[in-house]
This record gives sequence, structure tokens and C-alpha cells, in this order.
Amino acid sequence: MIAGQWVEGKGQTFESWDPSKNQAIATVSSCTISDIKHALAAAVDAKKVLDTKSSADIASFLQTLADEIEALKADFIPVAMAETGLPEARLQGETGRTSGQIRAFATLVAEGSWQQASIDTADAKRQPVPKPDVRAMNISLGPVAVFGASNFPFAFGTLGGDSAAALAAGNPIIVKGHPSHPLTSRYFAQAMLSALEKSGFPMGTFALLQGSGHELGSELVKHPDIKAVGFTGSLGGGRALMDIAANRDEPIPVYAEMGSINPVFIMPEALANRSDAIAQGLASSIAMGCGQFCTSPGLIVCLQSELPQLLAQYLSEQSPGTMLNPGIADAMQSALANRQSNHQVQFLTGGLSDTPLTPPASLMQIRAADFLANGEAIAEFSEEIFGPASLVVSCESVDELLNVAENLSGNLTATIHADDYQSTPLTQLLTLLKPRTGRILFNGYPTGVEVCQSMQHGGPYPASSFAHASSVGTAAINRFVSRNAYQNWPDELLPAELQNANPLGILRLVDNHYSRTAL
Amino acid sequence: MIAGQWVEGKGQTFESWDPSKNQAIATVSSCTISDIKHALAAAVDAKKVLDTKSSADIASFLQTLADEIEALKADFIPVAMAETGLPEARLQGETGRTSGQIRAFATLVAEGSWQQASIDTADAKRQPVPKPDVRAMNISLGPVAVFGASNFPFAFGTLGGDSAAALAAGNPIIVKGHPSHPLTSRYFAQAMLSALEKSGFPMGTFALLQGSGHELGSELVKHPDIKAVGFTGSLGGGRALMDIAANRDEPIPVYAEMGSINPVFIMPEALANRSDAIAQGLASSIAMGCGQFCTSPGLIVCLQSELPQLLAQYLSEQSPGTMLNPGIADAMQSALANRQSNHQVQFLTGGLSDTPLTPPASLMQIRAADFLANGEAIAEFSEEIFGPASLVVSCESVDELLNVAENLSGNLTATIHADDYQSTPLTQLLTLLKPRTGRILFNGYPTGVEVCQSMQHGGPYPASSFAHASSVGTAAINRFVSRNAYQNWPDELLPAELQNANPLGILRLVDNHYSRTAL
Repeated sequence: MIAGQWVEGKGQTFESWDPSKNQAIATVSSCTISDIKHALAAAVDAKKVLDTKSSADIASFLQTLADEIEALKADFIPVAMAETGLPEARLQGETGRTSGQIRAFATLVAEGSWQQASIDTADAKRQPVPKPDVRAMNISLGPVAVFGASNFPFAFGTLGGDSAAALAAGNPIIVKGHPSHPLTSRYFAQAMLSALEKSGFPMGTFALLQGSGHELGSELVKHPDIKAVGFTGSLGGGRALMDIAANRDEPIPVYAEMGSINPVFIMPEALANRSDAIAQGLASSIAMGCGQFCTSPGLIVCLQSELPQLLAQYLSEQSPGTMLNPGIADAMQSALANRQSNHQVQFLTGGLSDTPLTPPASLMQIRAADFLANGEAIAEFSEEIFGPASLVVSCESVDELLNVAENLSGNLTATIHADDYQSTPLTQLLTLLKPRTGRILFNGYPTGVEVCQSMQHGGPYPASSFAHASSVGTAAINRFVSRNAYQNWPDELLPAELQNANPLGILRLVDNHYSRTAL
Repeated sequence: MIAGQWVEGKGQTFESWDPSKNQAIATVSSCTISDIKHALAAAVDAKKVLDTKSSADIASFLQTLADEIEALKADFIPVAMAETGLPEARLQGETGRTSGQIRAFATLVAEGSWQQASIDTADAKRQPVPKPDVRAMNISLGPVAVFGASNFPFAFGTLGGDSAAALAAGNPIIVKGHPSHPLTSRYFAQAMLSALEKSGFPMGTFALLQGSGHELGSELVKHPDIKAVGFTGSLGGGRALMDIAANRDEPIPVYAEMGSINPVFIMPEALANRSDAIAQGLASSIAMGCGQFCTSPGLIVCLQSELPQLLAQYLSEQSPGTMLNPGIADAMQSALANRQSNHQVQFLTGGLSDTPLTPPASLMQIRAADFLANGEAIAEFSEEIFGPASLVVSCESVDELLNVAENLSGNLTATIHADDYQSTPLTQLLTLLKPRTGRILFNGYPTGVEVCQSMQHGGPYPASSFAHASSVGTAAINRFVSRNAYQNWPDELLPAELQNANPLGILRLVDNHYSRTAL
């Protein structure tokens, strides 16, 4: 969909694949560079109109968009189930999350503090030079390219978190549809079309470009009118886009969430007190979504104990889920084959499967000394396996456990199970994890990402491209803004957010104090 | 200076040059890769200690640092004058700005809202799943490499704005000393050494690595323990560091402020009402600091009028200043020679000089039609000339003036002179400038950058590397942070900023409402 019209792509065709039945559902044609140009021309025009919209207009548009998504519910879920292999209840829930996070952004935009309005008033008498009046606020950035994920076809799909954040900041979006669910993407594009029409917003605010292969996405990121990129997917895919963006005449930021192994550390007293409960909890977390969550616990670090056997038992009792697509299924099998060929890795359950699209959960074990043997070993075992698989790192001492923590690269999450909050090793572990992790959980499991203002879904590279940025939660809007300062402007020409009277009643920083009052 | 010790560099020597006398003052030896390793090892250790410091500790350290800089005043200014050619009054003022901005960061850190503490409380009864307790705050990022500017040897030098921002966020800094003022840098390193000693802060918090040529800086940015870069200088230099940083195994952000042509638009009624006053103001602004300000007005856009001649007259009356170093002086002469060879460019005053280190101010003029002729022309005339030189773009109509605005790339500032605030072209001009500019001034002159919370000293590429970031003002701290979320933590283990009792009394976002109260 470009500028409100359905356009037939002129590129190579690709198949929408049903992983449950392992068969093609439909054939879809890819867009080409001329479609990119067309979409960007419309987006640049749309931005001029969006820049005239008030926060209230944007908030109202987002609410309408959420309404339209909820109105879709009945008819598109069976199609999405077929394209993704995800069960109905999960997709019903994800519909609510998708519209819910769009509504959360609507509330944020209406509330107004996200613009970080800041006012320093003039002081004509200051020596040696008068102090000018300077006011600043966040503004929209420009057209944003969005690359959704296959594992959250709604919540991180065509109108998922990155799209919502970019739209909320007033930017047009060009979505590169994920080839794993092209029909699903069309439904969301239709919802967007209705929302744009009902809101009187320009059609160039949105485009959906379908395509398989890398060229369409690469060319989209290269287009000079794209000003930022939101990406959720693999490290390889994210890094490729980062490199393209960095090599442009005008480099642009790529906000990439690239997955993680999400280590879980079990402290000795928690292991002694709650082995069985932790094993049960981990088994559910590892198997959830057939392991295809970027927060799936892929590394479990604890002292030698019965926990691995307990966990293997619980995992073997889980009924297999369905992988999202054959590509992901094959990648998991290759990763398992790789581990199987390493004599240091012991398989406690699972392993290579004759049915890669519905694999059993795998639990592996390695001694900490082998994990830590050298940089190459650490790097190999720190690679995410996207699917129901986890590796236990079995330590001989707490020092070894801390050593594992110190040698990990950036992760989206880390989890600690601990009962003794005064223990020195716990303090040491927290100190090691803070600079290496986006979100740190206590006595829980990393799967399940709350959509709220305080969520940090990011983390140091390679988990994401910018350690301070989050792709989940309303703070995600901060990725897609620019900022203007206005010096000595006549009040009547200032944006409403910065006028003396504070007509919008928003929170502003005025001469270093927060207030909602007029000047 | 590395880890609190003065170390003799083992690399090539280079000369500290006095541009007023055009002679060498001292010979300095460059640092080498082994010095980088040594500095980073100390910085990594120092960060562990810095992470244990409270906001109050950091604030107190910054105040001590400001004290030490002010204590330097008497003896180092003559050395700095010799190395930079800058007059005493300017450097006295810049000392105040340098210590003042460090104190501003101290106040910011003590106040605490910069950490953007955010709390979402749990809701055990929420359906379908309980809502966890999630709390987030900004934390330090890691060792930051700082590349200062030659034109603000104090305020954007060794302990200038980037250094202050990075230190305030709790990061160690490795400063690549500017080869244009190595002796000046040493004084600031000495001030830092005293401040670290008096505050009991680790010596690895700071290193000054002197060096000429590009290798030292390149290798510094490549070092895996560097987590971000602050740079102020030329587009060529900034882009080179951006490319190096993007090509690392772990890409890192380079916050580069790379200069600008700072267009000044004069609307017809202002031109008619105030030509003479505007010409006087522009002449001072162009000549200020011998034109070596990143906010120097390098492009003046107005209707055909007497203004260019008036401005040329005022400029010719300015007494020449001294260029910062022979390299910058030569670059200015080459740029002028380039313009002189273009028959579309008319010199109204100045031109090539026999005394490149003390050049007269140059004013050039071009017809808007020639400026706009093609992309190459626009790019050529949009290149910053670092020195006292400006180009008038003479328009036949307001439409042409708007057309010039629409064809400009990113700028740090844009200035408008207007008296009729209701005019349609003014509204159109503002709409065009907002997405292309960091700071927009009304009826003023762009030189002189107020250090305050609302300052935006940045702008879209090529003015800076990230349009939302500012290198001046306390918002600059946001460039050097990471962010953690803590899920379901026991209160006693949370950082003080996020504990229920809010022991620091800081502003926090609690369940989407700002408050300073306890939970």
C-alpha cells in the first residue's frame, strides 16, 4: 500500500507459508525501488501536513487507529494463525497489546511531557551580556523505515511498537512488511487506511512495502528521505541495516533490537530452597512461544546441582509448539547440530529433530570452565538460538558464576534468583550485570515484556544498537524525535507548547524548575 | 596524563604554534597505542569506583573541578593566549564559561531529574497476567573519548562541554588533546588531577592523550572499551570518526558537532526598516572571534538591496583578528580562492590575503538563481568557511528566498529578521527551517551560545551527527547515558533513586504521574 492505494509489486514473487501445514498459502509480489521512491515522495508531502497537526490531533488519530485494529479482530486472526503457526489465544492477546500500546502512545502524546518543553527566560540585565530567551522542544524527525519481527506479527509487525512510536512523534512511516506474514500485514495496512481516512490524515503517512530478500530493505534504508530506522530481528539483519545507514551520505540512526541470550543466574541459597519451582518456571519460560521470544532464557548459570535434570524433565513434558517459518526452524537445527558436534556440550533433553517445524525443547549443559575457556568459546555459546533451547552453565563455585557474568556481552535481560539479599556475591553480580543488561529481573522469568513507561527493552550491543533506547514502552518515542530551540521568538509565533500562557497545560521545565503554570 | 601520572609520549613530536608571532613555542611528543591501552585499563577500573558514587559525590567532585579551574586563572592565560591567538578578555570570559558549565552540570546531577527515574508499580490482580513492578533510570555508559575544538580551547577543550557532560553522567573520559593548544590542555589536566585527589576519585577517571595526526584519535575510537565519542570540529574530522565508530565490532555513537553556515534570512519589511542596524549587527557577528565560531553567519539571504554594500563597509572597518592556527588560516585562503575563481561570486570586501593569519573579513555576493542552479552549486556554497567570511545570496523575490531555505542542508542555527509577524512568507519560512535547523533566532545574531537547559546546539546532519542531541547546555548529558530497568526488585537492593521512600527527593514518573513523594 502506497499513498492510500494498493499497488501490485513488480519484483520477484514469494510465498506466504503455513508452518503448521508446511505448505504455501498465497503468492505475493515484491515491491521495487520505484515503489520506494513513490512511497517516500508521498511521505515527504505527508510530513508537511503532519507538522501542522496538534498533539490532540495525533492522539485522536492514534485512538482511531487502535479502534480500527480492534475492529479487524474477527476475520483476520485465522489468516494470521495460518501464516505464523501461532495459536488463536496468543494472537487474540497480541491484538489487545497492539491496540493497547497505540492507545498508550495516544495518552502520552496528549499528556505532552514527552516533548520535553524547556524554557529559559531572558535576563536583559545580566553581565557581561544579556541572557536571551531560549525555549526548546522535541519535534518530529522525518519518515521512519520500520522492519517488523516475525515472532510478534501484530505487536512488532506492521503497526507494532516501532510504528506506533514513530507515528506518535509525528513521523510518516514506511513499513517493510515481514515476508513471513504478508497477508497479515495487509490487514493492518487496511486498518491504517481506514484510520487515515476517518482522521483526515494524509495518505502518505503510511506505506507498506512487501518483499522477500534483502534488496528492498537495503534500498529503503539508503533512501535520502528516510531519517531513522526501527528494526526488530536478528543480529545479522540489524547489523546489515546499521552498516548501510552508517555509510549513507547522511548517516541515520538504526534503532535495532537484535535479540539476546537472557542469562538467568541462580544463587546458591535459591538453588537449595527452590530448585523445583525454578525448574518449572524456567521450563515454561523456555518453551513459551516455542522459544521464539527475544527474551527467552537461553543461558542458565548456577552451581552444579539437580536443577538441570529437573529442568530437562519439565521441558520434555512440554508439548511441542510450531516454529514461525522454515527458515527459523532450519537455523535452530543448524545451531543444535553445531552444539552436538562439541564434546563439551551435553544434551540433557531434546536435540536434532526429524520435525524441525515442531521441535522438542532442548536443554544442554556445559561446565563453566569450558564456557570460559577462551573468547571464541564464550562468543559461540553466547549466540542466540531462536527456538526452544537453553544452555546450563554449570559452575564449581560462586566465583565461577561471577566470572561468567563478567564475560557476557550486552543482553536485553538478565534474571537473578536469590533469597539472601545481603549476600556479597549478589551485590557483586548486580554490579556486573547493570552495565551489560537492559532489564534485570528478580526471582522471575524474562519472557513477557510489560508495555509501560518504565520498560527498558534494549541493552548494550549486540542486544540493541543504542544502550539508552527502548523499543517497548512509551519511552520508545524518544528514538524518533529531533529537537529545536527558539531564541527570542515573539510569543505568538512559538508553538503552543512553548507559549507563555502554556495553553496546553503541559509539564515544562521553566528556568530549571518543572511546572504546568503560565509564565 | 594517564592514571594521574604525567607520561612522556613515545610517538612523533609536534610543535605548539603561536599564531600571533607565527613561531613555535614548544615541542610536544605524541602518545601511542600503548598509552591508549594504559588509559583505558585505568578508565575501566575507575568506572567500577564511579558506579559506587552517589549523585551528591559526583556533584561535589564537579564543583571541586570548577574551583580548580578558577584557581588556575592567573598563570595559564598567557600560555593559552600564545597558543591560540585569542585575546585575554575572551579567555578570561571563557574560563568563567568553562567552570560555569561544570557547575551547571553539578547542579543538574544533584537535582536528579536527569536520570529520568520512572516507576510502574505492580498490580497482582491484573488480568490476564499480573502486572510486574518495573522501575527504570539512566546510568553511566562507560569510558567516553572526547575530541575538543581549537576555537574554544577552554569551553570545548580538555575540560569543556563534552567532558563535563560525560563526567556528570558518571563516565571516565579520555581526552584527545587538540594539537593546536597542547600546553593549555596540560593546565586543565593539572586542574583535574587536583580535583580527583581532593575528591578521592580514582585517577583513571581522566586521561589526556596528546597527539598530532589522525592515528592516535582513530585508534582511541577503535578501542573496545570506549563506549561513546564527543567531538567538536570539522565535517571531515567528525565524519571520519563516525565511520570508524560505525565499523567497530561493537558500533558506538559519535556525538559530533561539525559546524554550519548558519543562514540569516532578512524579510523584506525588516530590510526596509532596519538595513543599517542589521548590517552593523551582522558585521560584528561575522568578525567575532575572527569568524572562527561554529555559529558564525556564513550565509545571508535577502532581497536585492543596499544591505550588502553597507555590510561590506562595516566589515572593512573591523580590525583583523588572529586565526587560531596556520592550518585553519590556509583552509580559509583556499576556500576564498575557490570562490574567487567562480565568476558568479562577487567579492564586496576582503578576498585573498598576504597575511593569512590575520586576514581581513570577506563579504561575497551571489545571485539566488546561481546559488540554486544545481545540487553541486548548492553544496559548494553551503560549505562552511571557518574564518571571517560570509556570502550574501541576493534574491529577486520572496519565493526565491524561500527556495534557498528549502535547499539548505542541516544547520546549527538559522536566524530570521522580521517585523511583520503575520506575514505568510514568514510562516512558510519557519516551516521550512524547523526540520533543517537546531536553533532558530529571531531578530538577533547567531554567535554567542547560551549555556542553559533549553539550548539546542546541534541540528540535522551535517551540522551534527544526531539531530536530537545538543553539545551545549545541560541536556548534553543525555548523550552519555545508558538505561536500566529493574523488575520486581527488593526495595533494599534498588538504587536510592528508585526506592519506595524516594530518599533523594528527586522528581520521578510514578504510574505516569510526576512526583517527588514517597510511594
